[in-house]
Amino acid sequence: MTRLFLLGLAAAIAVPAAAQTVPARVAQLRDAALADDYAWDITEGLTTEVGPRLAGTEAEARARAWAVARLTAMGFANVRIEPFELPVWTRGFESAEIVAPFPQPLVVAALGNSASTGPQGITGDVVGFDSLAELEAAPEAAVRGKIVFVSHAMPRTMDGSGYGYFGGPRRQGPGIASAKGAIGIVVRSIGTDYHRNPHTGTMQFPDGVRPIPAGALSLPDAEQLQRILKRGRPVTMRLVLVSQTGRGQSGNVIAEVPGRDPSLPPVLVAGHLDSWDQGTGAIDDASGVAIAAAAAKRIMDAGQPLRTIRVVWFGAEETGLFGGLAYQKAHTEPHYALAESDFGAGRIWQVTSKLGKERDAEARALQAALAPLGIVPGPTDKAEGSDIGPMLEAGAPGVGLSQDGTYYFDYHHTPDDTLDKVDKDALRQNVAAWTAMLAVLAGPVNAEPKRPRGR
Amino acid sequence: MTRLFLLGLAAAIAVPAAAQTVPARVAQLRDAALADDYAWDITEGLTTEVGPRLAGTEAEARARAWAVARLTAMGFANVRIEPFELPVWTRGFESAEIVAPFPQPLVVAALGNSASTGPQGITGDVVGFDSLAELEAAPEAAVRGKIVFVSHAMPRTMDGSGYGYFGGPRRQGPGIASAKGAIGIVVRSIGTDYHRNPHTGTMQFPDGVRPIPAGALSLPDAEQLQRILKRGRPVTMRLVLVSQTGRGQSGNVIAEVPGRDPSLPPVLVAGHLDSWDQGTGAIDDASGVAIAAAAAKRIMDAGQPLRTIRVVWFGAEETGLFGGLAYQKAHTEPHYALAESDFGAGRIWQVTSKLGKERDAEARALQAALAPLGIVPGPTDKAEGSDIGPMLEAGAPGVGLSQDGTYYFDYHHTPDDTLDKVDKDALRQNVAAWTAMLAVLAGPVNAEPKRPRGR
Repeated sequence: MTRLFLLGLAAAIAVPAAAQTVPARVAQLRDAALADDYAWDITEGLTTEVGPRLAGTEAEARARAWAVARLTAMGFANVRIEPFELPVWTRGFESAEIVAPFPQPLVVAALGNSASTGPQGITGDVVGFDSLAELEAAPEAAVRGKIVFVSHAMPRTMDGSGYGYFGGPRRQGPGIASAKGAIGIVVRSIGTDYHRNPHTGTMQFPDGVRPIPAGALSLPDAEQLQRILKRGRPVTMRLVLVSQTGRGQSGNVIAEVPGRDPSLPPVLVAGHLDSWDQGTGAIDDASGVAIAAAAAKRIMDAGQPLRTIRVVWFGAEETGLFGGLAYQKAHTEPHYALAESDFGAGRIWQVTSKLGKERDAEARALQAALAPLGIVPGPTDKAEGSDIGPMLEAGAPGVGLSQDGTYYFDYHHTPDDTLDKVDKDALRQNVAAWTAMLAVLAGPVNAEPKRPRGR
Repeated sequence: MTRLFLLGLAAAIAVPAAAQTVPARVAQLRDAALADDYAWDITEGLTTEVGPRLAGTEAEARARAWAVARLTAMGFANVRIEPFELPVWTRGFESAEIVAPFPQPLVVAALGNSASTGPQGITGDVVGFDSLAELEAAPEAAVRGKIVFVSHAMPRTMDGSGYGYFGGPRRQGPGIASAKGAIGIVVRSIGTDYHRNPHTGTMQFPDGVRPIPAGALSLPDAEQLQRILKRGRPVTMRLVLVSQTGRGQSGNVIAEVPGRDPSLPPVLVAGHLDSWDQGTGAIDDASGVAIAAAAAKRIMDAGQPLRTIRVVWFGAEETGLFGGLAYQKAHTEPHYALAESDFGAGRIWQVTSKLGKERDAEARALQAALAPLGIVPGPTDKAEGSDIGPMLEAGAPGVGLSQDGTYYFDYHHTPDDTLDKVDKDALRQNVAAWTAMLAVLAGPVNAEPKRPRGR
C-alpha cells in the first residue's frame, strides 16, 4: 500500500458520499420519482404508435411529429425541431443460404451502409476467420473473390465494454475484406444472445475502398457456419442483401423547462429518437428519451428551477451521430452540464462526472443524492454519451449515469428490441436518478410549486 | 383419510422404488451412459449436416439418407427406409404490417396448411379476440371480411400441458374464423418466450370450410397488436403468406439390434426425423432420435439382448403423424413396449408406463432403475408419445420418460430451435434413462460383451 493510496482511502472514509447531507427537496423529488409513470408512458407510446424509426426515413419524421405533440402536451416550453440533412441507407429483402455442402438457410441482417447485392444476390466460396486479426493477417490470395466470414467471442459484461473491443469485425471487417478483394462479408453479430435475430449496426468503408455487401449472422447461425467450415469441405454461400441509399431529412426535437435566470447556461438531458429498423427501439432508445424527459417533467411539476433544463431528443444517432453533430454545430453557447441516456433501460449502478475541479462539491452532492438508489460513486473526470460525445470531447461538462448493460447486447440492434424488454421498476429507478441529478444541477425550484401542466 | 388411501400409502412405504434391487448390469449400463457421446454426435451431425428437414421435402430425403448412413456406421442391423406418400405444404415469402393507424411491420410465420395469399397479399381491417371462446361467441357480422386476431395466455409449465389447453387458437382458430367469413387470421404464437420468432405448427381446416391464410405472430408482435387495437381506432393489416401445396414422399428409418430370441416381440424406441422448416430441429426432434439410438447402441455395445430393439426415426411427424400412422398400418405384429422421445432435450423427471397388470414387477423394476437419475415414479396406467400415440391408443404397451419442458415452448416450432439449446449434461441424463429402460425391458445381454461396432 502506498502512502498516496492511504491518503485517498482516508479521504474516502472521511467524507463518504452517502453520509453527506442531501437537501430534503432533492430527496423528495428523487423518491417520488420511484413511482413515475411519465417514462413508461413515453416508452410505450413511442414504440407502439410509431414503432421502428430509422434515421432519415418517413418513420423517423412521424416520430418527430409524435415527439413534438407529446412534449407539448406535457407542458414543456420552446418545443421545436431543428432539422438537418443526411445520407440515408434503407434495408430491402435479405437472405443467406449455404448452397454446398449442406444446403440450408442462415439468418442474416445487412449492416448499415452495406452495398446492395441486388435482388439476384451473389454466390461465392466462404473463407472463415476466427478473429479480425486473422483476417488482417490473411494474404489477399486467400480472400480475393470470396465471401469472408469473421467470428469473435464477445463476452457479457456489465459495462458493455465488449462492444468497443469486439466490435471490430462489424466496424472494420467489411473495409478490410473489400481491400483484400472479397466479394462480400458476413460477421458474427456483436451480441450475447442465442436467438436467431442478427444484430445490425452501422459501418463505413474507408475512402477509396469499394463498398461490398456486408451482413451479420445471428450467433446460432455464425456457430453453425463455423461447424460447417470445420468439416473441411468447400463451403458455398448465396447472399442476398438488397438495400438503397439516398439523402433525407432528420432533426433534433428540443423542449425546455425555462430557468428563473435565462442568462445561465442550460442543463442538457438527452436520448435519441431514431432507432434501428427491425425492432421498435424500446431500449435503444425510447427508454432513454423517456427517462430524460420524465426527469425534466418532474422538476417542472415541482416549480421553476434556477437554470433552464433543455431536453434534446436527437435524430439519426444510429447511422452516424448526425443529430449530435448538427446540435454541436448549431449550439456554440456554453452548457452547464450534458447527460444522455443511451444504454438501455437497466438499473443505474454508478455515477460519473466531469464537471471540473472547481465544481467538486457539486460532484460530491450528486454522489450523495444518488447513493440511496444503490448508485456508487465513479470517476469524477469522466462523462460519456453517444450524441453528446463530440461536445464532451470538446470540453463541455457532463454527467454519466451508468446503466447495467449485462443483458443489453442480447437485444441491441435486433428485432428483439421491443417494449417487453423494459422493466418498469428499473425504468423508475432511472427516472429517480435523473430527477435527483437535475435537482442538484439545475438549482432549487422556486418556493411556490406550480400545478402540474399537461399529462 | 380413507382405508384405501392408507393401504396404498403402506404399500408405497413397503416397497419404495429406490430401495428395490437394481441388477448390477442395469446400473452399470445406466451410469456409463452418463458419459455418452453418441447422442450429442447424432444431434450435432443431423442439425449441422442436414439442418431444417420439413416433411415431404428434398431436405427430409437428405435427412433419411444421412440417417441410413449414420445408423449403418453405428453398427445397427436391418437399417432400412419404409417409404410413404403424403400431402406436402411448403412456406414461401411471408410478411405482415400494420397499414393504419400506426404503420409498422410485424413478424409473422404461416401455420402449416395455411392458404396462400399469393405474392400480392391481402389487406383488411383487424378484429381482435382475447381467446378462442371470444371468437366462437362472436357474431358473423363482426368477423366477415376481416382479418381475425386471436390471443390467449399460455403459462409456462413443466409438463407442457399448456400446449394442448392453449393450442386452440392455432388448431381450431383458422377453421372457426373462416366459417364466420374471415379473410385471414393471425394468432398469438403458442409459446412462452418474448423473442421475435413466431411459433408455427400444423392445423387443418374442417371439411367444407374454405382454407384462409393463417399465421402466428411472435409474442412481442401479438402484444403490440393488442396495444394498437386498444387505442380504439380502426386497424388495417396487410398480410402476405405465400405457400405451396402438393404431394411428396417421406419415410420411416428403421434400424435394429437383433435379439437372441427373434420370436419375441421387439422393444421399439423412437423419435421423429423431420422438423419444422425454420429452425434446425435440434430439440424437436434431433435430440429425440439421438437419445433413442444412443441408448440402443449402448445396449448393443454391451452384447446381444434377449429381445430385439427396434429404433424408429419416424418421418413427417410435424405435419400430421404420417410416419406413425404408416408404421402402424405396416406393422401389425405385437411390440413388447413402445417409447418415443419427442419433448425436447430437458432432463427426465418422471417415468410412466402402461405395461398391464401382469407386468407390474417390470414397471417397478423400471422405477427402481431410474430413481438414481432423479426420476420419480409416475402413473403405471399411462404412456404417451406423438407417432406412437395411435398404437398406444390401440392398446400397445408403452413407457413414458417425461422430460422437463419448462423452457420447451420458448423454442418449439421456431427458428430458435437450434443446437445451442441442447444441454449436453441433460442429454446424457436422457441417454442414461433410456439405456436403463432398455436394459430392463429388452432382457439381459449375453454374457460375452461384443467389441463395440461402428462409431
